Amino acid sequence: MQTFSQFLEIVEKNIQNTHFNKEIKELYAPIHYILGLPAKRVRPALMLLSYQMYKETYNEVLPIAFAIEAFHNFTLIHDDIMDKAPLRRGKPTVHEVYGQNSAILSGDVLLIYVYEILRKNIKHQKLDNVLACFNQMAIKVCEGQQLDMDFEKIEKLQMEQYIQMIRYKTAELLGATIKIGLLCGDAPDLDCHLGYELGINLGIAFQIQDDYLDIYGDNFKVGKQKAGDIINGKKSAPYILALESLAEEEIESFIQFYASTEIDSSLKIKNVMAVYERLDIPEKILKLKSQFQSKAYENLSSISVSEENKKEMLVLVHSLFERNI
Amino acid sequence: MQTFSQFLEIVEKNIQNTHFNKEIKELYAPIHYILGLPAKRVRPALMLLSYQMYKETYNEVLPIAFAIEAFHNFTLIHDDIMDKAPLRRGKPTVHEVYGQNSAILSGDVLLIYVYEILRKNIKHQKLDNVLACFNQMAIKVCEGQQLDMDFEKIEKLQMEQYIQMIRYKTAELLGATIKIGLLCGDAPDLDCHLGYELGINLGIAFQIQDDYLDIYGDNFKVGKQKAGDIINGKKSAPYILALESLAEEEIESFIQFYASTEIDSSLKIKNVMAVYERLDIPEKILKLKSQFQSKAYENLSSISVSEENKKEMLVLVHSLFERNI
Repeated sequence: MQTFSQFLEIVEKNIQNTHFNKEIKELYAPIHYILGLPAKRVRPALMLLSYQMYKETYNEVLPIAFAIEAFHNFTLIHDDIMDKAPLRRGKPTVHEVYGQNSAILSGDVLLIYVYEILRKNIKHQKLDNVLACFNQMAIKVCEGQQLDMDFEKIEKLQMEQYIQMIRYKTAELLGATIKIGLLCGDAPDLDCHLGYELGINLGIAFQIQDDYLDIYGDNFKVGKQKAGDIINGKKSAPYILALESLAEEEIESFIQFYASTEIDSSLKIKNVMAVYERLDIPEKILKLKSQFQSKAYENLSSISVSEENKKEMLVLVHSLFERNI
Repeated sequence: MQTFSQFLEIVEKNIQNTHFNKEIKELYAPIHYILGLPAKRVRPALMLLSYQMYKETYNEVLPIAFAIEAFHNFTLIHDDIMDKAPLRRGKPTVHEVYGQNSAILSGDVLLIYVYEILRKNIKHQKLDNVLACFNQMAIKVCEGQQLDMDFEKIEKLQMEQYIQMIRYKTAELLGATIKIGLLCGDAPDLDCHLGYELGINLGIAFQIQDDYLDIYGDNFKVGKQKAGDIINGKKSAPYILALESLAEEEIESFIQFYASTEIDSSLKIKNVMAVYERLDIPEKILKLKSQFQSKAYENLSSISVSEENKKEMLVLVHSLFERNI
């Protein structure tokens, strides 16, 4: 049985050793570039740990774990174009290095390769089930990106809308990752469903935590800008919760203040944080997060395998929530 | 048994009646827009005619024909962004109407839908075979677009390279379309292979003919700019053949003249056409085209079904080559 950290190493090695067509260099160089950037590799490890709850080997599903990470990277390449992001994982984004056309086209071919890897490595009788789960997820991921872009134009977002967006954009992939691991491991239907729910709840809790840590975490340690969401007026969970908690007459001026990018950063952070404190936003956000986190632990505990077989999955889940940076 | 033109109508109706998720309007409006533009629908009709060589019904594969046309439209959406094309089928391109981000993202979700439609409508035991064929083709289509972009930077292209590019970018989809129709119709392996070759040869011949007609066809009838390829310095088949036929000392000045966009259009067309005449390019191009065309007819005649069952496929093939506009 492999541990979480062993799987991280195995996955990393597998990714670094995967090579695409060398003849048409311009098309595949961007793919090698983004897959070569240092990354956490949580998704492929999650898939392998899910599989391992039911099976002792892992070699035969290593390509499927790779496909999950490749799909994630496909979304990063295209999202970074749409968001005009200059940096990804501390390095220039694909479109910055290779130009926009290459970023569009190599994203496309990477997505097609994902399907080809799934087809090649999943047995006939399971292919339909796995692809049904994968396609459902992939459609939601695109819808989530669309919602994220639409939300920039909506003035008063509701928490429910925000949670739908992060569910689609982030959590669905985690849900499908676990479910595909379990489907490949021949787990019973109920466990597959519980695994999917586990991923959804994990993803939502993690994203809410991420929004919280952007303001209240020790950003210095990870080299991130402190309260970047406030500086950039990003519609994060704390902001939406504040809108729901403010008195009617305060809302308009808070929206305008938060959206403004002409105010001095430290002053903006100080004022927004003061509003958050007054409204108990930090506590409320942590409470919201822990609701999803608790559901995730419940989902995991309901999966019908021995504690021993869940041990490493639990290590992974803990590791996601032990971040305080 | 349906005729070619009946299938064109059936396909058109099917496309106009297909609706995607209505909730997230911004994501799906561009898809409805491009699929709604007037188009020839040769590809889905080709798929249905291939299927009909072996089966009498067609309803069960109508969604697969739709998926083929949808894939083609996915490539158009993304290619038009890369080529900065303002018009498609006489109307503004998707990125012109909906913006670039929507064009990228709705292209992505359309590709995923293509896979979902294939999965849902192809029986388990055939899914792997069809997807293998489809993925191989889709990868080549992306590689063809990359080659096309790379070729803009190469000064002296060879005909062999050009044919590889149009094979990947255009002909592979026709090859896969016919092969998928035959696979779905339970045709024997040899016929599936012949059908694939038929599509490849058809596609190459058609593209060479298209390059020829751009200069020597009656563009007025289709509302196309006469000799647009010459005006824009496009590396078309006649141009590449001319490079291969010119004397060594003439090449450099011809390359520069052809690439220039500052010369008066009529003068440029007149001079380039004079060079083509002197080198017998029109005859040579028609000869090259008919080599691939003959192979296509041979492929079709070798497919092991009755003449009666090939009749409508022959109508389609004739219709592609009877264009003189």
